[in-house]
Amino acid sequence: MRNADELRSLVDDALAEYVPHADLRGLDAVVASSVEGGKRVRGALCLAVGEALGRESEELLPAALAVELVHAFSLVHDDLPALDNDATRRGRPSTWAEYGEAVAVLAGDALFAEALRLALSYDSPGVARELVDATLGMIGGQYLDISGSEHDLASLNRLKTGRLFDASVGMALEIARVPERDRARWRAFSEQVGALFQLVDDLLDGDGFAAMYGAEETRRLADAAAEHALAALAELACDTGVLRELVEALASRTA
Amino acid sequence: MRNADELRSLVDDALAEYVPHADLRGLDAVVASSVEGGKRVRGALCLAVGEALGRESEELLPAALAVELVHAFSLVHDDLPALDNDATRRGRPSTWAEYGEAVAVLAGDALFAEALRLALSYDSPGVARELVDATLGMIGGQYLDISGSEHDLASLNRLKTGRLFDASVGMALEIARVPERDRARWRAFSEQVGALFQLVDDLLDGDGFAAMYGAEETRRLADAAAEHALAALAELACDTGVLRELVEALASRTA
Repeated sequence: MRNADELRSLVDDALAEYVPHADLRGLDAVVASSVEGGKRVRGALCLAVGEALGRESEELLPAALAVELVHAFSLVHDDLPALDNDATRRGRPSTWAEYGEAVAVLAGDALFAEALRLALSYDSPGVARELVDATLGMIGGQYLDISGSEHDLASLNRLKTGRLFDASVGMALEIARVPERDRARWRAFSEQVGALFQLVDDLLDGDGFAAMYGAEETRRLADAAAEHALAALAELACDTGVLRELVEALASRTA
Repeated sequence: MRNADELRSLVDDALAEYVPHADLRGLDAVVASSVEGGKRVRGALCLAVGEALGRESEELLPAALAVELVHAFSLVHDDLPALDNDATRRGRPSTWAEYGEAVAVLAGDALFAEALRLALSYDSPGVARELVDATLGMIGGQYLDISGSEHDLASLNRLKTGRLFDASVGMALEIARVPERDRARWRAFSEQVGALFQLVDDLLDGDGFAAMYGAEETRRLADAAAEHALAALAELACDTGVLRELVEALASRTA
């Protein structure tokens, strides 16, 4: 079984070697640059859940790449001038800043379509259903955010950030054919991981929860989410060592 | 068997009653307004192929709506100021002109995701694969168009317009479980229908082929595409009366 860092590297290497569909040939370089430099948390989580359930990472890899591509799609569109107007991303020019707005709109669309192509490489349509359902929630959350019509930050984060973490776990459950009745504990785990990720993000960026409730309270909430995530793992009858390692790394991350 | 106009009405009514996923609640009105007023050619084509193959329209309807939603998604993004900068669409303000650019970006994303949710309502992942594959081609074609890197208009149209017509037919073949060996004739038909649609569009708008080769030559090419489409239908061993009617309506349309 690979450790958490090895799983991240596996996702990162596969993304670096990833060749988009031939029909997107003009957008190859844009797509490649748009996925560069991420932390690969969502992809590694998908692989780690699959490995905990006794599956090979190779079997999970298309789903892990798919969730990373949906994440990249959301960043490319969110960075646009009309939305968050971010000219930099991961220390480099964001996609629209480097290639122009028109290309960034199309590159985001292409990343989403490619994610679906990967999720549809499985025999079961359930894998792609998990991803589409999560993406709908993410888009809905982003709309609530820019329109200012949702004032409960936790609800907003469950949509904007949480749903994609749910998909990371949910796709692995689908691939490993975990029966529906056994999925609730996994869902409880993914919900806490999504909350933990966002809370630490807010702490590091000084916005969201940290801006609203202060760093100390946000740290407390993050630690509680990590604790709940570990408690959910402890209830699962499989080797969750790597998942524990992932949770601890998310709780203590500094970037 | 319903005639072509009845099939269009069926698609139009279903789109008018269509309720997006609950997570998109804030975007409901935007999504509804973005799908209003189309000709429903792609959806009706999907239903007509299904009916020719002995299937009920109701079984085909999710796929027919899905292809219309992908079409609407492409229009919402293409109309954006950074792309075609169209402030009107179907005689009304385009989505960005009415709701702002940020909302239009997200509404396009939402329409695409909803299309996939519908295509994934079938047991076979093949239906959604057809749609995703076509969408990849469409996005790739749109990129070649805005970047000016493809100078062959017919190749460009095959991607930008043709691929979605292929999906209308291809999804119906998949739902009706037509064996792969019997699909080539249907593919030949859909290719001609896509070309016919675009050529008549160019004639009506005075751009594309009409601007490059003149109205007379474009009319000649459109008539040839209609003839080839009808010839492809004549080779199929099923009742293609409604499909012939659709082709003739496309050839003679004035709007």
